[in-house]
Amino acid sequence: MTQTSLDAAALDAADPLAAHRDRFVGAAGPVVYLDGNSLGRPLRSTAARMTAFVEEEWGGRLIRGWDERWFEQPLTLGDRLAEVALGAGPGQTAVGDSTTVLLYKMVRAAVAARPGRREIVVDRDNFPTDRYVVEGVARECGLTVRWLDVDPDGGMTTDDLAAVLGPDTALVVVSHVAYKSGYLADVAALTRLAHDAGAWILVDLCHSTGAVPVALDAWEVDVAVGCTYKYLNGGPGAPAFGYVAARHLADGTFAQPVQGWMGAADSFTMGPSYAPATGIRRLLSGTPPIVGMLGLADMVELVAEAGIEAVRAKSVALTEYAIALVDRDLPDVRLASPRDPAVRGGHVTLAHPRMREVTAVLWERDVIPDFRMPDGLRLGLSPLSTSFAEVAEGVAAIRTALDG
Amino acid sequence: MTQTSLDAAALDAADPLAAHRDRFVGAAGPVVYLDGNSLGRPLRSTAARMTAFVEEEWGGRLIRGWDERWFEQPLTLGDRLAEVALGAGPGQTAVGDSTTVLLYKMVRAAVAARPGRREIVVDRDNFPTDRYVVEGVARECGLTVRWLDVDPDGGMTTDDLAAVLGPDTALVVVSHVAYKSGYLADVAALTRLAHDAGAWILVDLCHSTGAVPVALDAWEVDVAVGCTYKYLNGGPGAPAFGYVAARHLADGTFAQPVQGWMGAADSFTMGPSYAPATGIRRLLSGTPPIVGMLGLADMVELVAEAGIEAVRAKSVALTEYAIALVDRDLPDVRLASPRDPAVRGGHVTLAHPRMREVTAVLWERDVIPDFRMPDGLRLGLSPLSTSFAEVAEGVAAIRTALDG
Repeated sequence: MTQTSLDAAALDAADPLAAHRDRFVGAAGPVVYLDGNSLGRPLRSTAARMTAFVEEEWGGRLIRGWDERWFEQPLTLGDRLAEVALGAGPGQTAVGDSTTVLLYKMVRAAVAARPGRREIVVDRDNFPTDRYVVEGVARECGLTVRWLDVDPDGGMTTDDLAAVLGPDTALVVVSHVAYKSGYLADVAALTRLAHDAGAWILVDLCHSTGAVPVALDAWEVDVAVGCTYKYLNGGPGAPAFGYVAARHLADGTFAQPVQGWMGAADSFTMGPSYAPATGIRRLLSGTPPIVGMLGLADMVELVAEAGIEAVRAKSVALTEYAIALVDRDLPDVRLASPRDPAVRGGHVTLAHPRMREVTAVLWERDVIPDFRMPDGLRLGLSPLSTSFAEVAEGVAAIRTALDG
Repeated sequence: MTQTSLDAAALDAADPLAAHRDRFVGAAGPVVYLDGNSLGRPLRSTAARMTAFVEEEWGGRLIRGWDERWFEQPLTLGDRLAEVALGAGPGQTAVGDSTTVLLYKMVRAAVAARPGRREIVVDRDNFPTDRYVVEGVARECGLTVRWLDVDPDGGMTTDDLAAVLGPDTALVVVSHVAYKSGYLADVAALTRLAHDAGAWILVDLCHSTGAVPVALDAWEVDVAVGCTYKYLNGGPGAPAFGYVAARHLADGTFAQPVQGWMGAADSFTMGPSYAPATGIRRLLSGTPPIVGMLGLADMVELVAEAGIEAVRAKSVALTEYAIALVDRDLPDVRLASPRDPAVRGGHVTLAHPRMREVTAVLWERDVIPDFRMPDGLRLGLSPLSTSFAEVAEGVAAIRTALDG
C-alpha cells in the first residue's frame, strides 16, 4: 500500500459502498466504532420496522400472524440468509435459539450420526462457548475431546487437522473466522479431510457471516451455526441460525435432542408422541423468536443489495488499511492476525502488554474496540458501517493511549 | 350470577381495572380478541420502547451496553418478574431461551439430581412440547415415562399423582394451568406429594403467569418454566423464563447440559474449561435475547401496578361471565373447563363437534378465539386487555356461527 493510499478521506471518497453508511444509526459519529464484530450498529430502518411490527403485524393480526407468516419465518428468513450470505440452497437453514443452543443440538446430532466413533476434534483457541459445548457433550456421551493446538495468531490448518484425524473421529468443530486472531480457515479443505476420515464437520460462522463469502453447499459442510448480531446487525442477543446439509435431512440422519412442538411433523395436531418434521424444521424446538428477527431481516437485504463479494472487498480494504497504519504508527505493537488477507476475516487483533488499559482509555474517549485475553485489542471493522476515517482515528487513538 | 350481572356494559363500567385496557394496541376494536392466552396484545408503550432502545441504548451505547446493563438483564428482569408474578425471592429466576429449551435443561437437571430413579411422571394432556421433551430426555437417559391419565376437562389431581408416585420417581412434570381445560392444579399439594416420594417437581407456568398468582417459594417447587408472550405480552416468540429453587443452586445440585459462555463462572476470562456460575446464571447458555425482552419488561410493571391479586379477580370475573353466558345462550355446547373458579385459570374451553369450523367462521368476522383438538374452542381472556363486552360479543358470535 502506497503512502497516498493511507489518506482516509481519499479512501472513503473512493469507497463504492460508502453511501451505505448513512443507513446506520450513529455512523456519522461521534463514536468511533471498531467493534462491529461483537455487536453491529442498528440500521436506521430497524426502529420503524419494529414500530410497524408492533402496531400492525403483532397488534393488528394478533394470533393470526402465526398462520399468516411467523410459523414459516424461521425457514423463510433462513432461506434468504442462505441465498445472500451462506452459499446455500433453500431448505437447509433455520433461524432461532442462541448460537450455544444450536451448537449443542448440532454436536449432539453429529455424534449420534457417527456411532462408535469416540473423538471430537476442536482447537484450544476456538470460542469459549464452542469449547464448552463440545466438552459437555463429550462428557455426557462418553466421548473424548481431542484438543488441537494451533497457531494463536492463526488458526486450524489442514496440517493441524490431518495430524489428529482418524477412524475414531466423529466430528471436527472449527470456526470459519477465529474470534481472536481473525484467521480465515480453509473450510473446503478441512471438510474434505474430515470426510476422508469419515467424520462430520461443524463450522461456526459467527465471525464470518455477512463479512466473508461462505459457500456451505460447495464446500459440502455437514452442519453450521452462526450468529446475527455481529455483521448481520440483528441487535443484542438476536437469534442465531443453523444449517444442516440437505443430504442429512433427506435421509433422516440428522436428529437433535431438544424435541419441541415447533420441530414436530405436525405442530398443531398435538399428538401423543414426537415425530420430527421432515426437512430443516426439525432443527427447531420452541416458539420462534419473531421479534428478535426484525433487525436482521433488513440487514440481509442490505447485504444482498451491496453484494457479499463487494462487502468482502471493502472488508479486506479496511483490514489492509488498519495493518498499514499499524506498521507505520504502532511499531511497538504486534500484529496478532494473519498478514495475508486471503487467510484473514473482518477483524484485526493487535497485541501489546498494555492493551487492557488501552482499551479502557479508548472507551472513555468514545473510541470503541474490544479486548480479548491476554493482551489483544480487536479492531472489528464492519464493512457496511465502518469508514476508513474511523480506522485512522482508532489507530491514532491507540498511539496516543500507548504514549499517555 | 344474576341476570343483571350479564350486562357487559355495566360490568365494564364497574371494572376497577378497565382503564388499563387503553394501554394496549387495538383494545378499542374492531377485533374481538379472545386469544390472549396464546399471544397477548402489545402494550402501546412497546413500540416507543423499541425505538428508544434501537436509537439510544443499542445504537448509542453499542457494545458498552453489555457491561452497563444487558449482561445482568436476564437476571434483573427475572428477579422483577419473580417479585411481581411468581412469588419468588431474588436470585432464582432468569429470562432467556424458549420454553422448550428451558424445559429440556430443567428435565435433564432434575433427573441428574435424582440418580438411580427411573421414572418421569407427566400427564397425557400436558402441552405437547412438555411431553415431547420428557419423552426425549427419558429416551436419552434410559428412563421411563409414567404417563398419567387425567380428566380431560380437568387436570392432574393429588389422587392422580399419589397413585403413581414411588421410590423410582425422579421427577413430576405438571402444568399449573392446563392448556386445554384451563384446570388450575394445586401445585403446593402436588409438590408435597412429590417431595414425600423423594422426587422433584417441574411446573410449567405458561398458562398462569400474569393471570393467576403463583407462589413458587412458598410451595417449595424445585424448578419451573414459563413463557412471556401470553399474559405477559412480550410478543411472538418472546423469551421464556426459568426458576430454580435457591436450595438447589446453593448446594450446586442444579446442573444443566447446555454449557455456554453466558452461564460460565467468568464469561470473559474465556478459560480452557467450563465451570458453571454460582446462582441462577448457570441456567443461561448463549447470548441473552435482549431485544426480545423489551415488550415484556413494561408488562411486568403494569401487572405490578394493577397487582396480581386484582388481575386474578378480573380474570375470575371474566371466566365466570363467559360461563354464565354459555349456560344461558349455548346449551348445546359442553363446558370443557372446571366450573369451580378455584380450580380454573384464565381461559375457558367450549366443546362441540363443529368447533373447528366455528373458529374459522369467527376469525372471518374478526372474533378471535382459538381451536384445540379435537373439538375445543378456547376463550383466552387476558385480564388487563379484555373487556366484558368482548366476552359477550364472542359468545354471541359462537351462537350465530352454530346457528349458521
